[in-house]
Amino acid sequence: MEHEKRNIKLIIEYDGTNYQGWQRQKNAPTIRKAIEDAISHMTHEKVEVIAAGRTDSGVHALNQVANFHTHSKIPVEGFVKGLNSLLPPDVVIKGASNVPMDFHARYNCKAKTYDYYILNRATPSAIHRNYSWFVPQILQLAPMRRCLKLVIGKHDFSSFQATGSSTKDSLREVYGAYLRKQNDLICLSIEANGFLRHMVRNVVGTLVDVGTGKKAPSDFVAILASKNRALGGATAPPQGLFLREVRY
Amino acid sequence: MEHEKRNIKLIIEYDGTNYQGWQRQKNAPTIRKAIEDAISHMTHEKVEVIAAGRTDSGVHALNQVANFHTHSKIPVEGFVKGLNSLLPPDVVIKGASNVPMDFHARYNCKAKTYDYYILNRATPSAIHRNYSWFVPQILQLAPMRRCLKLVIGKHDFSSFQATGSSTKDSLREVYGAYLRKQNDLICLSIEANGFLRHMVRNVVGTLVDVGTGKKAPSDFVAILASKNRALGGATAPPQGLFLREVRY
Repeated sequence: MEHEKRNIKLIIEYDGTNYQGWQRQKNAPTIRKAIEDAISHMTHEKVEVIAAGRTDSGVHALNQVANFHTHSKIPVEGFVKGLNSLLPPDVVIKGASNVPMDFHARYNCKAKTYDYYILNRATPSAIHRNYSWFVPQILQLAPMRRCLKLVIGKHDFSSFQATGSSTKDSLREVYGAYLRKQNDLICLSIEANGFLRHMVRNVVGTLVDVGTGKKAPSDFVAILASKNRALGGATAPPQGLFLREVRY
Repeated sequence: MEHEKRNIKLIIEYDGTNYQGWQRQKNAPTIRKAIEDAISHMTHEKVEVIAAGRTDSGVHALNQVANFHTHSKIPVEGFVKGLNSLLPPDVVIKGASNVPMDFHARYNCKAKTYDYYILNRATPSAIHRNYSWFVPQILQLAPMRRCLKLVIGKHDFSSFQATGSSTKDSLREVYGAYLRKQNDLICLSIEANGFLRHMVRNVVGTLVDVGTGKKAPSDFVAILASKNRALGGATAPPQGLFLREVRY
């Protein structure tokens, strides 16, 4: 007898170091595959897990949100315990809840917040090596903060979109963007209604050029206005990026 | 021609996850072996690197201090760059300096500070798994703080010494001990003129019993006074422990 279909929402933390990102790929370990395999192991069903944000290879998540449909009667707490016992320790289910059938982790997402960590000191860090971008040049934070404020609001972010992306609509609204520093670690946070591919990493790469003095704040303004990716800075490496929060 | 002998002091950060601790062991990767091999590679000499604190397997260091003697003329900045290019990314030389020949990283050490991180929430963490002790039971911080204050001062810490240790003198002076919490992470810091084997981890293990209510603060007092390891709590796991600072 088949049970009624349910929709389950998951909150997931993962260390992306050893994965080729969220999305399933042939012959590569991905977060999605790890979770789908674990759910299938529990439910004996084929499942499809949909995430709010499809993070790239090496990118981490503190509170990724995902959902999947199942006919299983396993209670949500059973999914948390069961999946955590099946998953490797670098992928953790922090919570599970029953949600209406029409909840879709990606389409219903109202806003996401990403944090990006830069280690700004003379020598690299053994502890933070997989969780930050090591930048040895001294960064001037004041011009970086000024530029970061400029991304707040509705903008066409084509200048900060991954080369080769083919999004029809590159307009995104940034709700908040700030920078804080604690000891050697600089954390940049950006909240937006959506992000283009590599958008945070391209903004950060360009901001670091402003911080080192390689680019002036006026260059940053021109780059944002140009809608031309070629003018921006390098893409910051993935390991500094964390998907921190998803809002619905 | 042999150059004059020099004494070089190193500041070292390491992620202890993949090492069997500081001290050299047969057929096991240790931090000391990694560093000695890298120095020998640069100087073509056999060297002995002496650390302020010989951390155990899985324990981390943010600012371990060590010293070694060499006849090499390589400038100290050359050692920082050279060693970091030879060492794996989980061991980093943060600084090197020429010090008087009689400087001994262990014997001259006046005080060390260790931090111990506890993750206190319902589910484990993917990101902090190798850098904290996951304790799912709710911890009451007030009684833990009260007990932590009691270790300040000069005490015989036999109750918190690793079983089987044969230290002649188990008297140590704790200069400071405090607990702070940020989100789900509790950090306990202890500064002392010296530490017995497993002392921080045994104090933390016993404090967690106080935090969960398994032991009363009065039990903690009795345990400290008893000088009997058998009465204390379990040894907290190594991955939460960081050697943060060494004073001379």
